[in-house]
Amino acid sequence: MAESASKQDHFVGVDLGGTKILAGVFNHHLKCAGRSKLSTKAQRGPDAVIERVARCVRDAVDECDLDLKRIKGVGVGAPGPVDPESGKVIVGPNLSWEDVPLKKEVEKLLDVPVFVENDCNICTLGVYETELQSKPQHMVGIFIGTGIGAGLILNGKLFSGFNKTAGEIGHMILEVGGPKCSCGNRGCFEALASRQAIFRRIQTAVKDGQKTILTEMLGDDLTDMRSGDLRKALRRGDKFLERMIEEAAEYIGIGVANVINLLNPEVVVLGGGIIDALEDDMMAIIIETAKDYALSGTAKGIEILASKLADDAGIVGGAVLARRETK
Amino acid sequence: MAESASKQDHFVGVDLGGTKILAGVFNHHLKCAGRSKLSTKAQRGPDAVIERVARCVRDAVDECDLDLKRIKGVGVGAPGPVDPESGKVIVGPNLSWEDVPLKKEVEKLLDVPVFVENDCNICTLGVYETELQSKPQHMVGIFIGTGIGAGLILNGKLFSGFNKTAGEIGHMILEVGGPKCSCGNRGCFEALASRQAIFRRIQTAVKDGQKTILTEMLGDDLTDMRSGDLRKALRRGDKFLERMIEEAAEYIGIGVANVINLLNPEVVVLGGGIIDALEDDMMAIIIETAKDYALSGTAKGIEILASKLADDAGIVGGAVLARRETK
Repeated sequence: MAESASKQDHFVGVDLGGTKILAGVFNHHLKCAGRSKLSTKAQRGPDAVIERVARCVRDAVDECDLDLKRIKGVGVGAPGPVDPESGKVIVGPNLSWEDVPLKKEVEKLLDVPVFVENDCNICTLGVYETELQSKPQHMVGIFIGTGIGAGLILNGKLFSGFNKTAGEIGHMILEVGGPKCSCGNRGCFEALASRQAIFRRIQTAVKDGQKTILTEMLGDDLTDMRSGDLRKALRRGDKFLERMIEEAAEYIGIGVANVINLLNPEVVVLGGGIIDALEDDMMAIIIETAKDYALSGTAKGIEILASKLADDAGIVGGAVLARRETK
Repeated sequence: MAESASKQDHFVGVDLGGTKILAGVFNHHLKCAGRSKLSTKAQRGPDAVIERVARCVRDAVDECDLDLKRIKGVGVGAPGPVDPESGKVIVGPNLSWEDVPLKKEVEKLLDVPVFVENDCNICTLGVYETELQSKPQHMVGIFIGTGIGAGLILNGKLFSGFNKTAGEIGHMILEVGGPKCSCGNRGCFEALASRQAIFRRIQTAVKDGQKTILTEMLGDDLTDMRSGDLRKALRRGDKFLERMIEEAAEYIGIGVANVINLLNPEVVVLGGGIIDALEDDMMAIIIETAKDYALSGTAKGIEILASKLADDAGIVGGAVLARRETK
């Protein structure tokens, strides 16, 4: 075997979610060489999930005709607070995990250095490294999907705070006394603007007799509704849905303004399933609302952008983390 | 003159406010040796105010029988965003200032090194250095007075963000569609829990026929009401006022929870005129509400305290800044 063939010049990024595991192999320039996907099977417990993470990494490496010997590091994004030093997942709400030594266990199975971070942090890192050429000192990534989470980069570094939970923006109160959130409180950002919140508002209105193209597309009870369905109905001129999406975009803009008022980052990047599907319909409203609600002068020169990484944010970010940590 | 007599072993802290200027002389252990006070006279323009800042420093130094030669540095807290490197006040909303080179001009008049920071940042620094023995890595100081502002210490250092406006927490939206704020938006933290907001709610209720001990104390139109009057009326068992203060404390608790969810600092310190006057009535409610609204796990081990520095926070912080910068 030629010497170059065994050079450790690739990284694997892993996105460990509540329902699926994604892994991607990237070269040093963060070009994707191959990928794989497995269901998480969280109900089987941490050991089984850890084995599946390792298997997903092996599958992705095999997919691009490489060998684990070529992998310099693996970066894993996990839901919930993570201690990056020990590589432990402190709490994994979607996985029913508590204090799981993910780094150590995956390293045992793969014999490759593994680095673990919170999933929103890792997505923010991926956006920062691959989409922001200006390399701002301070940026915030906000991800709007089933829930809402954020990652903070301050002074060029990920910021996790005291309990490693910084960025829990989904539970920032925007409307005291507002709609009930899954966390038990009322008026959280997540209860106003997440996919779940938008879907619930649509379903409630339909039950109350509201007409929408969505029921023609999906049936009266709107089961199996997806973010992409909203986009399709909007394209067909659904005025009711337009109002719903405008309202959600306004809440997102207010959430962004709160972040600008409190942290004053140079760049705010929005991502996640709702933004991926509805960028064209939402971003202009989000930006206008954020600038309206940010205190005069605070938003000057601040960029508010949509990420283009979509579902790849987690695996790209994982590879970026592994590359940073093995430098 | 003995050599030690001319040693530069003192610092001056200056609190430059919209209506008054306070200066305090401190030794190396931050013990106050003397102080002075002047009205600001903002309407006379920046040059006149700068001359008064210098005069206030000279007065304080003279008050404690010292000489400017004994002063190693002067730290000034100014309202609005400040560029600490150039020492310019970018915008001074209460002073009608724009781009005023405060550091350079005061240095010219005093021939002593001068350092300038935002007033909330400087108060936070004063609290951090003199009241927190644990020296946490991350803390937030929230000051509730006529308005509401905050200072952030992250990784042991003041954090100002891109436009030097980080900490504008008073304009964080807590209640979309809530009461009108002086900034033009609705539902800002400041419009719900500042002194102005509390006073307005009391005055509106009284106009609508609400009975309160305050009108016996101050007359029906409640002119010249001060935070201390609220405390006195509470001590006399005013149930209406109790509800008002409880409501404000709950809003403050929600504001604190938002900060904990987003930034996850180790310590949150509350200060300012409202907290100074009503600490005993508000702090327990603030802490309980903050822990209720912070996402499960995020507030673990986080301390929420009231500062004891009261009106001295600004001058103490100024001296701390000068000591840090001349090390």
